[in-house]
Amino acid sequence: MLNQLLQKLPENTNILEATFGLEREGLRVTPEGKIAKSDHPSVLGSRTIHPYIQTDFSEEQLELITPISDSTRQARRRLGAIFDVTQRSLEPNEAIWPLSMPPYLKAEDIEIAKLDNPEEVAYRQQLVATYGKLIQSISGIHYNFELGKNLFQTLFLESQLDNSVDFRNQVYMKLARQFLNYQWFVTYLFGATPLAEKNFYLNMPQGLARALRASKTYGYANDDKVQISFSSLDNYISDIEENIVQGHLSLEKEFYSAVRLRGSKHSRDYLEKGISYVEFRNFDINPFDPLGISQETLDSFHLFILSLLWLDDLENADADIEVAKTLNEKVALAHPLDPLPAQAQPQIILDAMRDLVQHFHLDAYYQGLVEQMELAVKAPETTICGRLFGKIADASLAAFGLTKALEYHQESTQAPYSLKGYESMELSTQMLMFDAIQKGVNLEILDENDQFLKLWHQDHVELVKNGNMTSRDNYVVPLAMANKTVTKKILDQAGFPTPQGQEFANMDAAIRYYPLIADKAIVVKPKSTNFGLGISIFQKPASQADYAKALDIAFAEDSDVLVEEFITGTEYRFFTLNGKCEAVLLRLAANVVGDGKHSIKDLVDLKNQDPLRGSGHRSPLEKIQLGDIEQLMLAQQGYDVDSVLEEGVKVELRGNSNISTGGDSVDLTEDMDQSYKDLAAQMADVMGAWVCGVDLIIPDINQKADINQPNVHCIELNFNPSMYMHTYCHQGPGQAITPKILQELFPELPIYGK
Amino acid sequence: MLNQLLQKLPENTNILEATFGLEREGLRVTPEGKIAKSDHPSVLGSRTIHPYIQTDFSEEQLELITPISDSTRQARRRLGAIFDVTQRSLEPNEAIWPLSMPPYLKAEDIEIAKLDNPEEVAYRQQLVATYGKLIQSISGIHYNFELGKNLFQTLFLESQLDNSVDFRNQVYMKLARQFLNYQWFVTYLFGATPLAEKNFYLNMPQGLARALRASKTYGYANDDKVQISFSSLDNYISDIEENIVQGHLSLEKEFYSAVRLRGSKHSRDYLEKGISYVEFRNFDINPFDPLGISQETLDSFHLFILSLLWLDDLENADADIEVAKTLNEKVALAHPLDPLPAQAQPQIILDAMRDLVQHFHLDAYYQGLVEQMELAVKAPETTICGRLFGKIADASLAAFGLTKALEYHQESTQAPYSLKGYESMELSTQMLMFDAIQKGVNLEILDENDQFLKLWHQDHVELVKNGNMTSRDNYVVPLAMANKTVTKKILDQAGFPTPQGQEFANMDAAIRYYPLIADKAIVVKPKSTNFGLGISIFQKPASQADYAKALDIAFAEDSDVLVEEFITGTEYRFFTLNGKCEAVLLRLAANVVGDGKHSIKDLVDLKNQDPLRGSGHRSPLEKIQLGDIEQLMLAQQGYDVDSVLEEGVKVELRGNSNISTGGDSVDLTEDMDQSYKDLAAQMADVMGAWVCGVDLIIPDINQKADINQPNVHCIELNFNPSMYMHTYCHQGPGQAITPKILQELFPELPIYGK
Repeated sequence: MLNQLLQKLPENTNILEATFGLEREGLRVTPEGKIAKSDHPSVLGSRTIHPYIQTDFSEEQLELITPISDSTRQARRRLGAIFDVTQRSLEPNEAIWPLSMPPYLKAEDIEIAKLDNPEEVAYRQQLVATYGKLIQSISGIHYNFELGKNLFQTLFLESQLDNSVDFRNQVYMKLARQFLNYQWFVTYLFGATPLAEKNFYLNMPQGLARALRASKTYGYANDDKVQISFSSLDNYISDIEENIVQGHLSLEKEFYSAVRLRGSKHSRDYLEKGISYVEFRNFDINPFDPLGISQETLDSFHLFILSLLWLDDLENADADIEVAKTLNEKVALAHPLDPLPAQAQPQIILDAMRDLVQHFHLDAYYQGLVEQMELAVKAPETTICGRLFGKIADASLAAFGLTKALEYHQESTQAPYSLKGYESMELSTQMLMFDAIQKGVNLEILDENDQFLKLWHQDHVELVKNGNMTSRDNYVVPLAMANKTVTKKILDQAGFPTPQGQEFANMDAAIRYYPLIADKAIVVKPKSTNFGLGISIFQKPASQADYAKALDIAFAEDSDVLVEEFITGTEYRFFTLNGKCEAVLLRLAANVVGDGKHSIKDLVDLKNQDPLRGSGHRSPLEKIQLGDIEQLMLAQQGYDVDSVLEEGVKVELRGNSNISTGGDSVDLTEDMDQSYKDLAAQMADVMGAWVCGVDLIIPDINQKADINQPNVHCIELNFNPSMYMHTYCHQGPGQAITPKILQELFPELPIYGK
Repeated sequence: MLNQLLQKLPENTNILEATFGLEREGLRVTPEGKIAKSDHPSVLGSRTIHPYIQTDFSEEQLELITPISDSTRQARRRLGAIFDVTQRSLEPNEAIWPLSMPPYLKAEDIEIAKLDNPEEVAYRQQLVATYGKLIQSISGIHYNFELGKNLFQTLFLESQLDNSVDFRNQVYMKLARQFLNYQWFVTYLFGATPLAEKNFYLNMPQGLARALRASKTYGYANDDKVQISFSSLDNYISDIEENIVQGHLSLEKEFYSAVRLRGSKHSRDYLEKGISYVEFRNFDINPFDPLGISQETLDSFHLFILSLLWLDDLENADADIEVAKTLNEKVALAHPLDPLPAQAQPQIILDAMRDLVQHFHLDAYYQGLVEQMELAVKAPETTICGRLFGKIADASLAAFGLTKALEYHQESTQAPYSLKGYESMELSTQMLMFDAIQKGVNLEILDENDQFLKLWHQDHVELVKNGNMTSRDNYVVPLAMANKTVTKKILDQAGFPTPQGQEFANMDAAIRYYPLIADKAIVVKPKSTNFGLGISIFQKPASQADYAKALDIAFAEDSDVLVEEFITGTEYRFFTLNGKCEAVLLRLAANVVGDGKHSIKDLVDLKNQDPLRGSGHRSPLEKIQLGDIEQLMLAQQGYDVDSVLEEGVKVELRGNSNISTGGDSVDLTEDMDQSYKDLAAQMADVMGAWVCGVDLIIPDINQKADINQPNVHCIELNFNPSMYMHTYCHQGPGQAITPKILQELFPELPIYGK
């Protein structure tokens, strides 16, 4: 008996160390709240390989699966991202139903999932034959749990047992037993299936319940003949095997317990390999949470699991569990506002949780969770089902469900450029993560601050940093692009036009160069910086004093400085990928256009309302500021912030065209002459770059590119070019780049048809 | 007539803009000063493809060829490096003869170069038949010259001619004519062949000369029948073609003029394509300069060339040149201390140079060169041949030649780890450049400060930075290795042992971690820095205060900090390349070992005399300092700098084992158990790294590596591992890494036999 095991652990033990996995089912519905008739979205790729987004029983029943996660927060954050991606991948106007019980539907509305694997389809057909079709549409959430490796090892040492597989099986069997013994507690707190819509059951429940899905009567349960003992692993295995021999179960996985042992297809294998983890299947979808399960629920349940291990084991497991099941049925079928029945003893479990929190010095958050559960025990109206009671109208939750479905759908689509839960990462990385989740490429964030991802499909692993730094570029090429002198030499040697110029390592030599540029338009810039810092442009010849000042500024940024001829024309950014130009962008300085009514200040406010504009590089465009620089710029043009511009009059608020200072992005991919796109791609090719941002200065895009004249110059190649900038533009359709990166990295994915 | 053309150029014209190429011949000799009988060194690879090191007529006659260079300094610097590489590639004890005239030798000593191309061999056999064998062994230097592109363009615009090819031909024909007209001036200044060793000529010269090689009588000259006009390109071409028809010349290249038109095999092609450049073949090897030609000579000759263009063209070219040739012969055969004959008018050329220097405001250096030439005209003893006169003993320069040959050889070999002229670059890059020059891979420095090289063989181009950053590593791998968290995750996931630990982004979280490490030996380190900065090691458990201090130090270096268990053992560096461990290094803290006689200070001085020790990372080891840190370390052990240590007693002067603070490097490649080498290579492979420095902590290298125990931990992977460190070691044989890099990059080179 594994009693008092936790109590003996040192207080600084990381008792919360565990791994978690979540599976959330959900029906796709139409904007009218009817079950969707469409196929599983094709943009989600192949269900044969998709690790995150599957269909459950029926074509319209989504199953969202998180990878194994090191904390409840990580698991829920991943679920949030997968949910976000899924919502944004649905047919227009479809949404995900936010309740476990489906909206009103008939059996013929339900279509068995169109899976490639015929065995999977056959299994579903057999389920229909045994249990009927309608009941398959009930959705829920599964909570997979494993104790952390170090914690388990500490427990094992504490146990002084010899065999860690035996110990593992004992721990998880105790957990399963205890769970069944206290399931009523979970049903009470988290039950959220008070009713079924009209005609769902042949025999509809009389009145409201707390958790139809958790009840034996209305939930998804095995035949009464199926009786499996949890008193020991040996008994469990022999019961399972006996039931299969008897034909009560077709497969082991047909045993629908609220708790499942996991890790092997056949229970008998646990004797040798040990139970890997356990799966709790009792969670109804919480419609008050967009994801169907809140952070507090996840952590409360985690505390609950630990308290099950904290408590002493059952004396007479099978008998105790039998009693507990009856209690659970009673709680499940009670009215949402009914308190727990008298024979339930929540105090035991609450005390265990409180002792545990105290013993391991868990913080106030966990204390609060225990208090919240205590309150819920006293006040049924604070439970999920208690709150849901108020949303019932005409014995239906259809209206409430639809409202919530649309609300959550709206939340997912309002910032299409970002990935829920990962908004602090770089936008391009968020977009690539979105694509990976959508297409079913496995994703792990190796370093969040460093934008470092691991992507894989089967054995094929790709590391990606910043969304565009991959194995497809060789190491020395970005190093060459980071060095303006090297870049220029390579382009020059290949015959591509670049501004003529000279590199200087000291002020003296640079000053001595003055006579040669005294009558020329020039640019003075640091050799290696990449953010426009330290650059001076002289569109008219500079005086020697101004030239010296510009050199000072540039030398402050870098030990080497370039002095180059200034090329007249407009600068365009060409994004090239694997030898092809995928996007062309024009960047315009922050500006407003008058309407004869609004002041410049108001025009800026209006323009800043664009949801694409934000701050801190976490949205595709930045809000226009009205600081000193902008006001000076206005003053130079004879305006102030209160000036009202004539209709159509455009005023620039900045001298530079950076997006980061409120500039506009204009997608010109379709309008740009192919000759320039080809030229940009050739430059990237000569450089050997897979990903490249080519900055070309072009005086007249109506002429075709001609490198012999030349009427186009390359002023810079960028090894870390922004991708999101091309995707969500102030003007123009925008070009999605990250999906192409993903496709180039994983051409073998079934969705790409290769 | 292209007269007064330079005079019309604006004074800020970059008149010195030009490209230069040098070819220097030289005989290999034995330590006794006899002609070498050995084959061309096999380490120099294939003469069929070698761009820098060839054989000229005979097997022992080296020809060193610089690439086209943008300045005389660049050309000479490259010649220096090629010369250095060549000397260091010779058979032990061989050296390069520093005079144009060979040491005493007989015709049978000379073996025609063993070239692969039978046509080349046949051509040489024909030369023997026509001119004899001995005269082929005279060596010289060729100076190739082309006006800079911008300068040429400026001149062309100034000329107001229509056709730039015509103009180009006119310019270079004028240059050739004028050169022949003033060749005596060059012969006077730079002639350095006063005598031939015994029996060299059938008819030996009577007495000393200034420049036997430049004379028609003793030099390498065509038959008198060969008469070629330089009055115009048309005349030149028709004369050449006529001489071939007549059989006076077998090929166009058999016309041995002191100046040659270059760019096409057939002169007639110049009419359409233009003369590319001109080659001046008049330079004797200057034995007072290791390279055979000094910087001052190169620049003086450059001024001379420009002054030829500055002067008005010849009125009667052919007649003038005929007169000039007679004068040249007179100067060439005059005694080394004879002044110029009266009919020579050096003042014309000296005035032209002075006018040019003044017109274009050339700096004091160029003024000085003109003054030096002026002096030389007045004082024949200051010319090269004048100086050489004093070195003649017994009518021979054999002893002087040998002394100089050995002196220059010694200079090349005294710092075998560096490449002459490029000592300010990183050592590993210098070594790779050495290898490229040696094996005949084309080399261009794209950015010297950035250690950025372009290497190529035929169409195959490789960019290399820092000697080890190449196309063979993919971009994301070094980024992953630069991130300790990512590295650890990848190694962990692959099952390789790394120290357990935790990453923190803020002080708070790191402090809260304290209970978990309160009783452990730990390392606190910044996540991304690479130079040992900010690392604290607690071999015994740290107090919370010390832990917090260590965190402060680490957070000062990086926004993320790692706290890891401290692994006991010795750290070894494994250098892996393309899946194979190529070298293993142990680094020991700066130390001295007593001899019972010397003080610690003296022991340090003695140890610092090792030529491998220098300062500033430009030698394989650093000199040991005796600063505050070292003295404190001594004091802690009860010593001071004057203590005399017992024989065999070793004292450490530093707590850290970095080479940069005077540490010793010990090459353990051969002694390290293969299991560790394999493990390091596997780690690099899992990481996907082509080049990798794997740092392993091993408590006992006598045990085999076992990752299950584990008895070995990886503490870091380095994406920019030092290579030179493994090559020149304080102890152990040392492993040459850069040749392997080169071989991996260019496996197709004939020398690698693939």
